[in-house]
Amino acid sequence: MKNIFIIGCGLLGSSLLRAINKKKITKKILVYEKSKTNLSKIKKLKLAGKIVSSLKDGVINSDFIIFCTPMSEYKKIIIEINKFILPGTLITDIGSSKIETSKVFQKFLKKDVNWIQSHPITGSEVSGPEHGNSNIFNNKWCILIKEKNTKKKDILSLKKFWKKMGSKVTVMNAEKHDKIFSMTSHLPHLIAYNLVKSAQDFEKKQKYDLIKFSAGGLRDFSRIAASNEIMWRDIFFNNKNNISKAIDLFINNLNAFKKDIKSKNNKSVLTKLIHSKKVRSKIIKLKQDINKPDFGRN
Amino acid sequence: MKNIFIIGCGLLGSSLLRAINKKKITKKILVYEKSKTNLSKIKKLKLAGKIVSSLKDGVINSDFIIFCTPMSEYKKIIIEINKFILPGTLITDIGSSKIETSKVFQKFLKKDVNWIQSHPITGSEVSGPEHGNSNIFNNKWCILIKEKNTKKKDILSLKKFWKKMGSKVTVMNAEKHDKIFSMTSHLPHLIAYNLVKSAQDFEKKQKYDLIKFSAGGLRDFSRIAASNEIMWRDIFFNNKNNISKAIDLFINNLNAFKKDIKSKNNKSVLTKLIHSKKVRSKIIKLKQDINKPDFGRN
Repeated sequence: MKNIFIIGCGLLGSSLLRAINKKKITKKILVYEKSKTNLSKIKKLKLAGKIVSSLKDGVINSDFIIFCTPMSEYKKIIIEINKFILPGTLITDIGSSKIETSKVFQKFLKKDVNWIQSHPITGSEVSGPEHGNSNIFNNKWCILIKEKNTKKKDILSLKKFWKKMGSKVTVMNAEKHDKIFSMTSHLPHLIAYNLVKSAQDFEKKQKYDLIKFSAGGLRDFSRIAASNEIMWRDIFFNNKNNISKAIDLFINNLNAFKKDIKSKNNKSVLTKLIHSKKVRSKIIKLKQDINKPDFGRN
Repeated sequence: MKNIFIIGCGLLGSSLLRAINKKKITKKILVYEKSKTNLSKIKKLKLAGKIVSSLKDGVINSDFIIFCTPMSEYKKIIIEINKFILPGTLITDIGSSKIETSKVFQKFLKKDVNWIQSHPITGSEVSGPEHGNSNIFNNKWCILIKEKNTKKKDILSLKKFWKKMGSKVTVMNAEKHDKIFSMTSHLPHLIAYNLVKSAQDFEKKQKYDLIKFSAGGLRDFSRIAASNEIMWRDIFFNNKNNISKAIDLFINNLNAFKKDIKSKNNKSVLTKLIHSKKVRSKIIKLKQDINKPDFGRN
C-alpha cells in the first residue's frame, strides 16, 4: 500500500485519516467527502491528507481504497470508480453488516480489482469528522471477511494495515459475521431505539413528564439511540433476516419473563438475574469493558 | 431529627451514612446490618456511625429511621420494630417501587408512627458498602411519596433532609411514581436482563463465541444487567402490573419495527431513528446526562 484513498470522512473516515497520518503508514493520503458541511469541518480541523474534488482524482492516484460512507452509497461509488480504477487496486470498507454489501461488490465491481470487507468494532453515538480520534481502533477487534476468491496475499496485507491501526484482527465469512453482530450490536441498538420510542408513546398517553426522571436507566439507552440514523437504517435493512430472528428470540424471552413476574416465580426470575452477571464477568475478563462501576456520567 | 438510624448498610445505606456524617447533620448515627460480610467490610472501612447489634438498640435510640434494605425485608422489620418504636418517630426508605411497600407500611406499622416513602434516583451496577459514596445524591432527583394522611410537617422535614444530601426533591403519589418508573427504569433494566439472556441462548444454539465481540452494544446492556438481583426481583414483583403494561407497549412497538425493517419502510424507520435523537437532546438539556460522547470505557 503506497497511496491510500479514504472515501467518506465522518467519524470513522476521519479517525482512519488521523491514525494513518499519526502512524506514518503512507506519505500520500487522499480524501473524498461529498458533504459540504463535513468538508468545511475537515478544512477547519486542518486534518492531514489531500482533499480531492472527485472520486476519479482519488482512485487514479491510489492503490488502496477505504469506503467509509454509509453502506447504501457503495453501489453508486463502485459504478462510478469502475470507469478509471486500475487492476490490482485493493478496496476495503468499514460497514457493520456484510452479506448484502458482499453481493454489491461481487455484482458491480470490476473483476480485476481486489476487495475484502472489514468491520472495525468501534464507534460512538456521535458522528462527523470533529469527533474522530486516532485511538478509536486501539485494542478493538477488526473483522475481515473471507470470500470464496479472497487472495491470501490481500488478507495478509489488510491484516497488517489494521494491526498498525491498533486493532486485533480476526477473519470469518459474511454469514457468521452477520449472525454474530445481529445479536451483539444490531439488536441492542434496535432495542434502545424501541425503548426510547416506547417512552415517548407512554409520555404522550399519560401526559407525564418522565424524561426528567430518566437517570434510572432510560438515560443510558437514549445515548445508544442517538447514533447516526442513516448508518443504522442501512444496517437494519441489510441484515434484516438475522435481526428479525433475533427479535423473535428476544420477544419469546420477554414474554416468558413477563409471565414469571406476573406469577412471582421467584426461582426462575432469580436464575435469570444471576445468570446475567456471569456474562458481565466474562465481558470484563475478555477486556470488552472495564470493571469500574458507573454511577452516571457527571 | 436528632438521631438517625440506618437499617441496611449496602451501597445506598453506606452512601447515606457517609453523606450524613460529611454534612454533619447529626452527631448520632446508628447502623444495623444483618450480613456478616457487609459488617466486616463496614468495620474495615472505618465508616462513621455506631453499629448496633439489634434493631431494638437502633430504634429506641433514634427519632428518624431509614430503611435501606431490599424491599422484601420491610414487613419483617416493621413487625419487629413495632415492639419498641416510640410514637412520633419518622420512618422513610429508599426503595424503587412504592405501591406495594405503601400497603406494607399501611397495614403493619403501628398507627402512631409517621412514615413517608422516599426514592432517590441514584445507584449503580455494583452493590455493597465498599462502593458507597457521599456524593451519589448530588443533583439527583429524590421523589417523596404523599399518602392521604401524610403530615405537612413531616414532608417538610424530609424534604430538608434530602436537600442536605444534595438531592432535588419532588413529591407525587405512589401510583404516579410506579407508572413513571416502570418506563424510565424498571422496563430498561428488564430489557437489559432479557437481552443478555437472549445473547446467552443464541450463543448456546449457534456455538459462536459472541461475548468477545460485545463492544458494539451488548457490553453497555450487560453493565445494567449486572445490578443486584434481590433488589431487582423485588422491584419486578412489586411493580408487576405497570411493568407488564410497559412490556406490552414495548413488544407492540418492536413488532411494528420488525415489520418496517422486513418491508424496508424507509420513511417509517428514519422517522423512528430521528425521533429518538430528540429525546436524547431533551435528556441532556435536563442535565440527566452529559453531552460528552462515549467511545467505550477504556
